[in-house]
Amino acid sequence: ANGAMGNALWAGVRLKDILDGAGVKPGAVQVRFTGLDQALGPEAPRFVKSLDLDHARDGEVMIAYAMNGAQLPLLNGFPLRLVVPGWFSTYWIKMLDDIEILDQPDTNFWMKTAYKIPDTPGADMKPGQTGVPMVPISKMVPRSFLTNHRSGETVAAGAPLLVRGIAFGGDCGVERVDISTDGGKTWISTELGKDEGKYGFRQWQASLTPEPGKFSVMVRCTNENGLAQPGTANWNPGGYMRNVIESTDLVAA
Amino acid sequence: ANGAMGNALWAGVRLKDILDGAGVKPGAVQVRFTGLDQALGPEAPRFVKSLDLDHARDGEVMIAYAMNGAQLPLLNGFPLRLVVPGWFSTYWIKMLDDIEILDQPDTNFWMKTAYKIPDTPGADMKPGQTGVPMVPISKMVPRSFLTNHRSGETVAAGAPLLVRGIAFGGDCGVERVDISTDGGKTWISTELGKDEGKYGFRQWQASLTPEPGKFSVMVRCTNENGLAQPGTANWNPGGYMRNVIESTDLVAA
Repeated sequence: ANGAMGNALWAGVRLKDILDGAGVKPGAVQVRFTGLDQALGPEAPRFVKSLDLDHARDGEVMIAYAMNGAQLPLLNGFPLRLVVPGWFSTYWIKMLDDIEILDQPDTNFWMKTAYKIPDTPGADMKPGQTGVPMVPISKMVPRSFLTNHRSGETVAAGAPLLVRGIAFGGDCGVERVDISTDGGKTWISTELGKDEGKYGFRQWQASLTPEPGKFSVMVRCTNENGLAQPGTANWNPGGYMRNVIESTDLVAA
Repeated sequence: ANGAMGNALWAGVRLKDILDGAGVKPGAVQVRFTGLDQALGPEAPRFVKSLDLDHARDGEVMIAYAMNGAQLPLLNGFPLRLVVPGWFSTYWIKMLDDIEILDQPDTNFWMKTAYKIPDTPGADMKPGQTGVPMVPISKMVPRSFLTNHRSGETVAAGAPLLVRGIAFGGDCGVERVDISTDGGKTWISTELGKDEGKYGFRQWQASLTPEPGKFSVMVRCTNENGLAQPGTANWNPGGYMRNVIESTDLVAA
């Protein structure tokens, strides 16, 4: 239900240093990256993504050769992979084999047609709605999850219950993770685990003591830019940027 | 509404050392303490309380000469005051001037008639109920309070709100302080402040983010013996040992 998420430690070379070393001429506007990923059908265009030049030179975008202290596995993009911290992984080109400087904004399929979101608050629109301006997806948004209990689980009533999980801020660090047991009327802050850097998952935990009966634990991350997960889910054709607050229904007995 | 509470640092001499120094003969059962407090009416008996010998010799009961690093003020019992940690202050005889060893349990007015509680769970009985066995009040029970907001106060919606207060365990330390915003259905632990010893007040705090509307914060202390404040108030003729969970009604706007 929640797609794939990962949290790894990357080692590599700053793209900025490579671009500075190669030299970028005046008039450059974007940097295009091509990978060796092969499409399954013959019609599909080769996988190519571009970043604005300033973003490519921000000192954070890197060409990674290692993940968690080991050489990149094939499935993770051996031998080299573009890492674009805080942005959705469509930009994280695996098996990177070409870097090109563009003097015009890229209009290839993967930039102009695919991976587009409504240019609306929360990337939200209505099913069937037309005339909504679309823009390429970019920054990730905050999310959080309760991971040590499943919905429907029965727990002990009248005893402290540890609830814990993970959160990430998206394009910046986790400011706070709050839980609610009253359906979102009030939110109570949780204890945050070790800060592994602004793009890393962060653990959170709290201790609850439930009285007998059903209860529901909602968990909400607010990132360091003050952006919090929304109470209602957004909608767009690609299902992108969905980060509605998750809820876990438990029974205390 | 909540009577008088205090939290002070006492300095004095262990009663045990005094009793050991004086010598206690076989057959002794209680120790009686008399203070110089004068009753307002001529009929009132002089203020006298007794402790069982084992309690008097527990090494914690003390004769204090100083409070918070200074000589005892007159109102606090100058020059000497009995300090009985964890017990209600009816035993904390001010202006102590006599210590007597008894070979029979004390039956004076302040032990046999006054300061009695129902010998029932939570010292609870019904108004008008008869035939309830009564015993002298002894150990204190856990209590907790939200102190930085008043009921009826309006606070900012959608912004973190610090709630904090004090708690005490009664006859032992504070194990945990929980708050509830869903009427006591679920309780969420708060962060405890410095542990000043098992009889000291302990600060607690939590951060809430309320959505617009009314909400209520309940606070509950559980002591190290596993005793928690009750959800409903007890009743007895003296109003003793009332430690029902307190609730603060706020409005977020």
